[in-house]
Amino acid sequence: MLSYVNNKFCFLDKAKISVNDRGYQFGDAVYEVILYRNGQFLDLEGHLKRLRESMSRIDFELTFSDSAIKTIIKRLVTENNLKYGSIYIQVSRGEYSRDHSYFNMPLNPILVILTKRIKENFKVIIPGIKVFTTLDNRWSNPDIKTTQLLPNVLAKTKGMKNGFGEAIFLDENSYVTEGSSSNFWILNKNDILNTRSLDGKILAGITRDSILRCAKDKKIKVVEKKISLDDIQTCKEAFITSASSFVTPVVQVDEMIINNGFVGEFSNLLRKTYLELND
Amino acid sequence: MLSYVNNKFCFLDKAKISVNDRGYQFGDAVYEVILYRNGQFLDLEGHLKRLRESMSRIDFELTFSDSAIKTIIKRLVTENNLKYGSIYIQVSRGEYSRDHSYFNMPLNPILVILTKRIKENFKVIIPGIKVFTTLDNRWSNPDIKTTQLLPNVLAKTKGMKNGFGEAIFLDENSYVTEGSSSNFWILNKNDILNTRSLDGKILAGITRDSILRCAKDKKIKVVEKKISLDDIQTCKEAFITSASSFVTPVVQVDEMIINNGFVGEFSNLLRKTYLELND
Repeated sequence: MLSYVNNKFCFLDKAKISVNDRGYQFGDAVYEVILYRNGQFLDLEGHLKRLRESMSRIDFELTFSDSAIKTIIKRLVTENNLKYGSIYIQVSRGEYSRDHSYFNMPLNPILVILTKRIKENFKVIIPGIKVFTTLDNRWSNPDIKTTQLLPNVLAKTKGMKNGFGEAIFLDENSYVTEGSSSNFWILNKNDILNTRSLDGKILAGITRDSILRCAKDKKIKVVEKKISLDDIQTCKEAFITSASSFVTPVVQVDEMIINNGFVGEFSNLLRKTYLELND
Repeated sequence: MLSYVNNKFCFLDKAKISVNDRGYQFGDAVYEVILYRNGQFLDLEGHLKRLRESMSRIDFELTFSDSAIKTIIKRLVTENNLKYGSIYIQVSRGEYSRDHSYFNMPLNPILVILTKRIKENFKVIIPGIKVFTTLDNRWSNPDIKTTQLLPNVLAKTKGMKNGFGEAIFLDENSYVTEGSSSNFWILNKNDILNTRSLDGKILAGITRDSILRCAKDKKIKVVEKKISLDDIQTCKEAFITSASSFVTPVVQVDEMIINNGFVGEFSNLLRKTYLELND
């Protein structure tokens, strides 16, 4: 796979960064994942906008224009002959002799772009997953898309080891924040779609935003609010959204069986609508 | 500088890791910093023990023995002709195609060891620093020495930009946890040394532990307890400890002037004792 690392194109086995990259030593970096299907990038503009916002939130910026980044991405997709794949973009603050403080360091961010071939996972009908809940133990800014991801990694892996497809974080009052790499939604008992509002405790998911628009187009009532375990207990359907999985139905949360364990029609409809929107 | 990266010795300009290293993409890595002076490593055994504990806490282990790691470190020190320096050790979970979950990934951790020449900073008499306090916004396990360091980076840099030598984190009840890269101590109004106990909210500092032993040797009364802003307001002296700065006197915390702005005799004595202990 051809990759782009710090101003150069190279193959993945040569795609290396310095051990003094601040992304490696401090997690001082931001990232995005963008899905690609048959000539189409899913929500590309939204991802590039958020990448820039993430950098701004942690006090640096990239001199590359969006159009320059797009040119690189398109070349990678073409040369790698990608049909279905994902684009991974990471920007770190740069490479410096190790010091916690970056004060007075000349800014020189490092842009890395990788592509990955994926199985055709754009099917409309997919099985539902089981998820488990766990205390949200991340730093105070999960709303910035940084590589501070170890709590996510540990929660997700604990889930996978125990047969769960995702870990759902709960805040200190047992309301859902979001999944380890997804946003969480329910269709409540009154047929209203609920997902947590952008209150600083969750990432402003790009797919989340697209789904909100899909729902509005379909005249589905949406209320952005905190979801409690009681709300889940009584909901009609549940699902998660993310750039790489779109809409994934959830049929069990901890011991709670959702919709008698079946994938809900509504979740299917939203997934179908989202995939058509990006067709 | 000769370095050690993933089973090979190489010079720093060739010291590179894969963009798929989990340390780079997730902060899925642990580290240690060890000071070296004229043939002596400061608290080497303690640092290697903690490195292994950190790995265990995040569910992986290194097949290298301590003695193998020491052999590498000694070769680097010798070949780099180091007189005064620091040794940086980082171990990441390994290099894999990107996935939050490491479930079912064959374990293959990557060991990196770097050395850095430092200015002779082993002087006994040094100026005091000003520090500022800020809400501790790290993840729930700052007691594990991982590379989840962005909150530390941002706090430290904010301090440096405003003339402060260190950022001191406060918990939600305004008690000191620790510095962005140090432990915090006071000599209270009753001549008792206070520092926070190992309650999971701070790192088990190796230098902290040595200083506790120094204090006991000198028959100084120590009580490990939470330090409030009131305690700081009325204390006789304050200082921070870390592997790379040993004991550094603090003469101001936010707007509070400590010991009339002068470095305290007690802080000096502890620094001297620590440096002699490791002479």
